[in-house]
Amino acid sequence: MKFTIDWNDGAVVLVDQTRLPHEHVVLRLETVDSLVEAIQRLRVRGAPALGVAGALGVALAAKQFEGERERARAVQLLRTARPTAVNLARGAQRAAALLPSFDAVLAEALRIRDEEIASSGRMARRGADLVQKLCGDSPRLLTHCNTGGLATVVDGTALAVVFELHRRGRLGGVVASETRPLLQGARLTTWELRRAGVPHRLAVDSAGPFLMARGEIDAVILGADRICANGDVVNKIGSYAHALGARAAGIPFICVAPESTVDLGTARGADVEIEDRGAAEVAGSTAPEGTDAVNPAFDVTPAELVTAVVTDARTFSGRADGPDGLAVG
Amino acid sequence: MKFTIDWNDGAVVLVDQTRLPHEHVVLRLETVDSLVEAIQRLRVRGAPALGVAGALGVALAAKQFEGERERARAVQLLRTARPTAVNLARGAQRAAALLPSFDAVLAEALRIRDEEIASSGRMARRGADLVQKLCGDSPRLLTHCNTGGLATVVDGTALAVVFELHRRGRLGGVVASETRPLLQGARLTTWELRRAGVPHRLAVDSAGPFLMARGEIDAVILGADRICANGDVVNKIGSYAHALGARAAGIPFICVAPESTVDLGTARGADVEIEDRGAAEVAGSTAPEGTDAVNPAFDVTPAELVTAVVTDARTFSGRADGPDGLAVG
Repeated sequence: MKFTIDWNDGAVVLVDQTRLPHEHVVLRLETVDSLVEAIQRLRVRGAPALGVAGALGVALAAKQFEGERERARAVQLLRTARPTAVNLARGAQRAAALLPSFDAVLAEALRIRDEEIASSGRMARRGADLVQKLCGDSPRLLTHCNTGGLATVVDGTALAVVFELHRRGRLGGVVASETRPLLQGARLTTWELRRAGVPHRLAVDSAGPFLMARGEIDAVILGADRICANGDVVNKIGSYAHALGARAAGIPFICVAPESTVDLGTARGADVEIEDRGAAEVAGSTAPEGTDAVNPAFDVTPAELVTAVVTDARTFSGRADGPDGLAVG
Repeated sequence: MKFTIDWNDGAVVLVDQTRLPHEHVVLRLETVDSLVEAIQRLRVRGAPALGVAGALGVALAAKQFEGERERARAVQLLRTARPTAVNLARGAQRAAALLPSFDAVLAEALRIRDEEIASSGRMARRGADLVQKLCGDSPRLLTHCNTGGLATVVDGTALAVVFELHRRGRLGGVVASETRPLLQGARLTTWELRRAGVPHRLAVDSAGPFLMARGEIDAVILGADRICANGDVVNKIGSYAHALGARAAGIPFICVAPESTVDLGTARGADVEIEDRGAAEVAGSTAPEGTDAVNPAFDVTPAELVTAVVTDARTFSGRADGPDGLAVG
């Protein structure tokens, strides 16, 4: 399979990311319920991939259900399968606008897929240009979570920038944070970096700020699940801690995400519902049985800590002293 | 067994912390080599407990070896079993000064043990007083790593303060960070809190700063492996990230450690050798085989981020605006 998620012969096909890096399993999902389960269990994840999943899910609904009410219920299930990423709801909504025609819905979903593919290439080039401008020709980067081809359709967002710098012969090194609790960095980012032949090292999440303080990192580069109207960035838990580390070390903190992640309808990060994924992911088999947890899946990095947001269309900053001096919106 | 580590009938006995929380195994170690292995594998850990381990190890050496050269070699092995904690080398050295008399060495080691026991009680009361003064009567605390009875001989350092506030009916809540890579928070702190009947929640390390930003934490309280002459605190990796979070949220960051942790011979944190524990602990079975890692076991929190250091003898601050306005030393 060429893409992380696609439509094939009447079904959504996707790489089951919970099985990586040890097994490469492609799931074939023919019902909305099975796709919602895959979204909630993080078999498919990453804001751009979720946008495509939401839209393809509506195509499944159009095929699976006759009645308007059943279809509306399916769209609602898809839209709310995970509350924080704006792309999921947006992808589902864009496709749902073309109901009841299955053909029109599927065409729109595939258009979203193709837009994300084109957008990855543009982000990679724009982001690599910015990193070279800010950090010179041998930047040592730290990235968080997984923002590679597995989080999009192909290539990725922040990790696409790392790949692009590597192709240019302009990468000084990359540290991937493991990204607890589900270890998307340790499992997925390392797998993608190895496949692309990019030398890398893994670190526990809490080591990032210290590596920056020791002068071992020249910039932090990561994705975004939602970018608010004021420039606040909602992203995987741990992003904010890395932003504090970057500010203290005086290095750039760069978010790379498709334009579809910008949500002008949300004024600021504090307005976003932050998904809490419960105790099992954290306590697991490690802590004594029955241990309670607080497990926010995302956090908010205030705009003032974000050096730049790179999208497929532009580079902007929520900070007055941002590199291009551009406001959001 | 009443204590985490002790001397019993010609051997060092200690709780194997790598087996907790699922098994409670007491090891009986009769050779220096087996004790060094236990120290390096973190079967015994925590700065105060390591001080006692180092001293009791010299008693083992005095019993095990006849020759001066063999004993000196054993003392050297003990002193350097882990490079970052000052207590280990200091405990071994204090006991070694009384060689070749086994009786004198053992008496000194037991004196160190008893000093640590008395010191835990004093830290608990002094720390609880300070937390109430700074945060009022229902403080919600976040703690990192394990600083309970398992890290000392009994009761603990920072966690002893949590226990003391609980006994006083003055604890608003406690979040334990899981403390990657070896999960001392998830495995040990939760186990001790549960045993003491203190309600608590577990969080991934990188969530700490965000929980502070959301206003859910009133103070960070943790231990120290070494406190430098300028007030820099060397402690478990992740402490620095939590300190950045505390500063950004405007809440106190409090270190609790016995006076024996203060090392006036080390000018500042940058002078301390930071142990890197290799890739296996981080990559483990999660990342693709052969994945490289950067795995510093400790980090340095600059004195300016530390609101106060509480020892068994005093409260001081490396910051000019510290609560007692006291300089270190």
